[in-house]
Amino acid sequence: MSESASQTLTSETTDSLRTIIDRPGLLWLDLKDPMSRALDDLSAQYGFHELAVEDSRHYEQLAKVDYYENYSFLIINATHYTEKPCEVRLREIDAFIGSDYIITVHDGPSLAVAELEKRIGTNAKHFERPDQVLHAVIDVVVDRYLPTLDHIGDTIDTVQDDLLLNPDVTLLSTIFALKRGLLQFRRAVSSQRELLNLLIRDDTPFVHEDMRIYFRDVYDHTVRAMDLVETYRDLLTGGLDIYLTQMANRTNDIVKGLTILATIMLPLTLVTGYYGMNFENFPLIKNPNGIWYVTGALVVITLAMLAFFKLRKWI
Amino acid sequence: MSESASQTLTSETTDSLRTIIDRPGLLWLDLKDPMSRALDDLSAQYGFHELAVEDSRHYEQLAKVDYYENYSFLIINATHYTEKPCEVRLREIDAFIGSDYIITVHDGPSLAVAELEKRIGTNAKHFERPDQVLHAVIDVVVDRYLPTLDHIGDTIDTVQDDLLLNPDVTLLSTIFALKRGLLQFRRAVSSQRELLNLLIRDDTPFVHEDMRIYFRDVYDHTVRAMDLVETYRDLLTGGLDIYLTQMANRTNDIVKGLTILATIMLPLTLVTGYYGMNFENFPLIKNPNGIWYVTGALVVITLAMLAFFKLRKWI
Amino acid sequence: MSESASQTLTSETTDSLRTIIDRPGLLWLDLKDPMSRALDDLSAQYGFHELAVEDSRHYEQLAKVDYYENYSFLIINATHYTEKPCEVRLREIDAFIGSDYIITVHDGPSLAVAELEKRIGTNAKHFERPDQVLHAVIDVVVDRYLPTLDHIGDTIDTVQDDLLLNPDVTLLSTIFALKRGLLQFRRAVSSQRELLNLLIRDDTPFVHEDMRIYFRDVYDHTVRAMDLVETYRDLLTGGLDIYLTQMANRTNDIVKGLTILATIMLPLTLVTGYYGMNFENFPLIKNPNGIWYVTGALVVITLAMLAFFKLRKWI
Amino acid sequence: MSESASQTLTSETTDSLRTIIDRPGLLWLDLKDPMSRALDDLSAQYGFHELAVEDSRHYEQLAKVDYYENYSFLIINATHYTEKPCEVRLREIDAFIGSDYIITVHDGPSLAVAELEKRIGTNAKHFERPDQVLHAVIDVVVDRYLPTLDHIGDTIDTVQDDLLLNPDVTLLSTIFALKRGLLQFRRAVSSQRELLNLLIRDDTPFVHEDMRIYFRDVYDHTVRAMDLVETYRDLLTGGLDIYLTQMANRTNDIVKGLTILATIMLPLTLVTGYYGMNFENFPLIKNPNGIWYVTGALVVITLAMLAFFKLRKWI
Amino acid sequence: MSESASQTLTSETTDSLRTIIDRPGLLWLDLKDPMSRALDDLSAQYGFHELAVEDSRHYEQLAKVDYYENYSFLIINATHYTEKPCEVRLREIDAFIGSDYIITVHDGPSLAVAELEKRIGTNAKHFERPDQVLHAVIDVVVDRYLPTLDHIGDTIDTVQDDLLLNPDVTLLSTIFALKRGLLQFRRAVSSQRELLNLLIRDDTPFVHEDMRIYFRDVYDHTVRAMDLVETYRDLLTGGLDIYLTQMANRTNDIVKGLTILATIMLPLTLVTGYYGMNFENFPLIKNPNGIWYVTGALVVITLAMLAFFKLRKWI
Repeated sequence: MSESASQTLTSETTDSLRTIIDRPGLLWLDLKDPMSRALDDLSAQYGFHELAVEDSRHYEQLAKVDYYENYSFLIINATHYTEKPCEVRLREIDAFIGSDYIITVHDGPSLAVAELEKRIGTNAKHFERPDQVLHAVIDVVVDRYLPTLDHIGDTIDTVQDDLLLNPDVTLLSTIFALKRGLLQFRRAVSSQRELLNLLIRDDTPFVHEDMRIYFRDVYDHTVRAMDLVETYRDLLTGGLDIYLTQMANRTNDIVKGLTILATIMLPLTLVTGYYGMNFENFPLIKNPNGIWYVTGALVVITLAMLAFFKLRKWI
Repeated sequence: MSESASQTLTSETTDSLRTIIDRPGLLWLDLKDPMSRALDDLSAQYGFHELAVEDSRHYEQLAKVDYYENYSFLIINATHYTEKPCEVRLREIDAFIGSDYIITVHDGPSLAVAELEKRIGTNAKHFERPDQVLHAVIDVVVDRYLPTLDHIGDTIDTVQDDLLLNPDVTLLSTIFALKRGLLQFRRAVSSQRELLNLLIRDDTPFVHEDMRIYFRDVYDHTVRAMDLVETYRDLLTGGLDIYLTQMANRTNDIVKGLTILATIMLPLTLVTGYYGMNFENFPLIKNPNGIWYVTGALVVITLAMLAFFKLRKWI
Repeated sequence: MSESASQTLTSETTDSLRTIIDRPGLLWLDLKDPMSRALDDLSAQYGFHELAVEDSRHYEQLAKVDYYENYSFLIINATHYTEKPCEVRLREIDAFIGSDYIITVHDGPSLAVAELEKRIGTNAKHFERPDQVLHAVIDVVVDRYLPTLDHIGDTIDTVQDDLLLNPDVTLLSTIFALKRGLLQFRRAVSSQRELLNLLIRDDTPFVHEDMRIYFRDVYDHTVRAMDLVETYRDLLTGGLDIYLTQMANRTNDIVKGLTILATIMLPLTLVTGYYGMNFENFPLIKNPNGIWYVTGALVVITLAMLAFFKLRKWI
Repeated sequence: MSESASQTLTSETTDSLRTIIDRPGLLWLDLKDPMSRALDDLSAQYGFHELAVEDSRHYEQLAKVDYYENYSFLIINATHYTEKPCEVRLREIDAFIGSDYIITVHDGPSLAVAELEKRIGTNAKHFERPDQVLHAVIDVVVDRYLPTLDHIGDTIDTVQDDLLLNPDVTLLSTIFALKRGLLQFRRAVSSQRELLNLLIRDDTPFVHEDMRIYFRDVYDHTVRAMDLVETYRDLLTGGLDIYLTQMANRTNDIVKGLTILATIMLPLTLVTGYYGMNFENFPLIKNPNGIWYVTGALVVITLAMLAFFKLRKWI
Repeated sequence: MSESASQTLTSETTDSLRTIIDRPGLLWLDLKDPMSRALDDLSAQYGFHELAVEDSRHYEQLAKVDYYENYSFLIINATHYTEKPCEVRLREIDAFIGSDYIITVHDGPSLAVAELEKRIGTNAKHFERPDQVLHAVIDVVVDRYLPTLDHIGDTIDTVQDDLLLNPDVTLLSTIFALKRGLLQFRRAVSSQRELLNLLIRDDTPFVHEDMRIYFRDVYDHTVRAMDLVETYRDLLTGGLDIYLTQMANRTNDIVKGLTILATIMLPLTLVTGYYGMNFENFPLIKNPNGIWYVTGALVVITLAMLAFFKLRKWI
């Protein structure tokens, strides 16, 4: 069936539908515009359920697998990370998989599919069954998680160092952007992990026994990714705590500065105020050296204060 | 039975009880006043359990399904969202479902039922069994969740931007209103999800095999809604953290301003106080340019202070 | 056995032991003093296990059910709520239930039992088996939960409004009293829910098939009560957050006020200090209008400051 | 076997090994020094596994049960509470239990074993099988939990009252000591609960059917203890929140006091500064009553300020 | 097979591959450079799966076990702790285990393997099967956890005492370093615990019945380690709370000092300002003792203030 199917389809191939592999036992079609008529044609030809087709036309859905009689429908969650501003976006690759064909659907060009095409060019013999293609797609997608997490981890390290050395309000927005990004990431990874958990546990109709260990390997990667996501969330929450305690420290420092200043200045002002009073019979006032005595007293008071603060390790 | 039942009931139809569909195999009655006598009559005719009837007359209950011998009773949770003030209210649609009939009960007009009536007008052929009606009702109710969540999500985005740019105490009440709304929403969605989970797992007597995949699709929507609710709760908690840190920042800024002012003013005051002392033998005091020397010193001190603060990046 | 048992017991009835129902198939004895000798007599007559008797004589235990060979022993958690000061106390009703008898034990008069006696007076026909009495007791106890929760919910609403409008330290003690009350309440409700969960799931020896749906209905009420308890705890925690942010706001407002005052006053003081210096050759000092020029300058400075603060929206 | 075993052992009894019960069907040996050679002898005689012997010689292990072929090995967690400073220490009682013997091992004298010996003196007939001894030991140990928790609960109540009336930094260390104590306690109780859960669920080889209900009773006590531990932890966290909000309150009060003082003093200082200027043509300055007008003005300003603050309820 | 295998391999032994035990029924090979060609040779000889070989060449993976047909592949997590700066690093020991051989792979010298070699030198008879070697390796690795945790626990104690006595910003970085370290540690220990849980539960092909109790003993140690990790995390979070409350205390103290100073100084300044006014008809001003009256008043005011603060326990 796949043979003839492929021939029929090639004749009506549009820009968006391409045949990537077409050999006995495996037809891989890739469709990069889920809204195109080509999907309707394929759906009619293979008898896809209306719900699956509808799902493949929606975006930002979480990973899942639905088993139908002759085929299965999967949603795979890819992620796209931009560093400035730190943002994680969900990408979606959908797949219809039957006994001898796999149809991948995505909106716009997919980096994962592109990379696989390159690999096939050099090493096509690893792709003989649909589950091998499926594994390769998921593997490429999941392999992208860890570099993204490393990026995020490095950013968190930088942020934490900055928080201890020069805490700044702009770090706050970075922290919250990272937090938001991790929440997005977690949604993608956790549903992807659940999907892989199903693929390795169930009697999945389209996964052959010898491929199960490979899917399990990808599953281990998603477990590790989740583990890192949780660690990073903990560290980010800790980062916010550092910020708050640093702010509390800074308030203390500023208020301490103000207090030291006031403690030195107010007594001096009192002394000058004292000698500014208009009493006629004022000691020292007519003494020619009176002004120097007082000036000396002012200097002594200041130095005594400074020594006192030094002693208390306030300055 | 449904045939004759429908005829009997039409004769005694009140304002609140309407027959929406009446065809072989499916009778759909809709009752918009659960307190009316019509419910007692229906209950007597179909032999509904007193507990089910009582439940359908209470409001604000969580979604559930009770299986009785010849029929089942369901509570479905709709939500009603008003934006200003942000508030989520639970609405309830109850359903008695038998082999060839479904009776929906709700207090006052229901938007979901109204929308379904419109659809039936254009496309009645999809409604041939009670479980199809039930699915349609739940589907319409659950489809309402996501726009509501999008609204809430947009509000949260606006609030978070405002928190970083101009934090204001009125944002606090918005945050707490959103929090309260999400708590309400979560109660509705989580019990609804449990309900759907039962409908797709159990050997539910009234759900036919071919409808199960449709109920599963609705279930996936509730899972996604819950997922968003949790993400939004996290973001709101983060929002409160932003507010608190911004308050800490602002306190620091204000106290810093006060400290800078005091640091500039107090030395100047000290100088004027010094020359305000009444000593007779005072240097400069009789010098005709003395006042200009001192005034110059005051200006120099001020500028030096400002330069110092500039250097320390305080201003 | 219950017939003769009842006759034996009636003869030795004390104040604390009363026969509420005594008909074929159902003997309901109520004992309002677990320390009385009557319990020992009953225990000897029916062969109750020493552990069960001991349990019925302790207070503040959590709800549970213990199955013995010919009877079962239950602890039911009632709650008693007092509004000022907000406090939740655990009350306990214990029950020994056999095939044709039920013995309820409680310390002091029980509102639940009293209410049931009233109902029996008007409608005794609903009580024909021990499990119906048990259901009635639990139902009355659980029905009390929701009004209590409504009270608590209303208090929380009032508290939250007060927190936003006029935060006050006395609100703190109210919040913590509510928190403590909810913790107590949660202990009672959650163990009661577990008890009911056992009664509807297990092959409970003393619950007849037709009563199971009634116990399930009570179970649903406890689930809803727990759900509300959790929602209220969340809101209370939020209330504490409001209080803290309001305190931060108030600190800011006070410090801002101080800063504004200092900013206006210090320059004015500087000017008066300047003209208070004793230089002989002082500009303006001998000008007859000098004082008015300076006074004018002071007024202008003040107004300029106020305008500046107005512009910055500080006042 | 136990007969001869007991005879052999009595002959070589050291200070640390004592025979508490020795009757047909039950030999209870108690060893208060796990490092002594007696344990090696017993181990050789009964064929204990090296791991079990090693475990009985380590301290601060969590409760557990290990099943071996002819015997089982249990670690039971007792707790020791000292009030000042509030501290909870783990004590450990280990037990080897076979079909007709039980050997308890502990480091130093055990209050639990001492109390049991007293009971046996008065009522030896309850101890006929090893599982009855085991139950008695665990029962005594677990009965100690609740008084400890009551002590902790009372301390928490006192602390919370103090926090609202006179918050003090020493309360902080009490709170953290209690927190640490509860963490220790929780470790002991939760593993003890798991142990009891195993004893009542599994087909435990050494627990007879009629004792299961007694173990279940102890299990209920550990559940209640855990429940209280969690409640207390919640209250302690709340206590820290009270402290922080009280600190925020106090800061506000102090700053408010400073602001009030400054608001009253600064205008007065301005007025005196104004009349301290040296202009020759000064209004009022030569008026004999000028000083009284100004003094009056100072008094009026002060009273007006105070009235204003009174009105605003600041003082 | 192992016999001949060992002979073949010895001939091509490189620096990194060593034969530790080679007796009938057990060949233990240790490879300290997973990148070396020796691993490829071994893999070819024993038929290891490409995924297992690849895993053994990656670092920082979490503990796991993969079962293949004739052998199993394990990753074991060792930890390496450095005190200054407090840091926990994951080390990894991988193992291929078959019916009569075990191959351990690690990057660089392994302390665990080195220690085992020493033990074998003195007591080789305990190592007769691969599962005994595996147990020994895991046992040594897990035994390292507790000393590390004790170190961390001691550091936490010191930090908490410091926090109460002299809170300092450098303690913050220590707390966060400990937190980060514990997060790393927890990842290692929790996956190790899961691994051991699998080894004692499953029908693990390579673990003999009599070794299961030994693996269970190691499992108990990981449970205890996890338990301590959680306790320490709780204490660290508490440590941050102490820091924040101490900062709040300190702010209060500083602001209180400022307020006391201002409260004493401002009235004094007012008095001197009052007598600095230039009114001609000034009471006391011409009185020869006027200055002493006023000076006395200043002293009295100061003493009264100090007494007042003393009374209020502010100083």
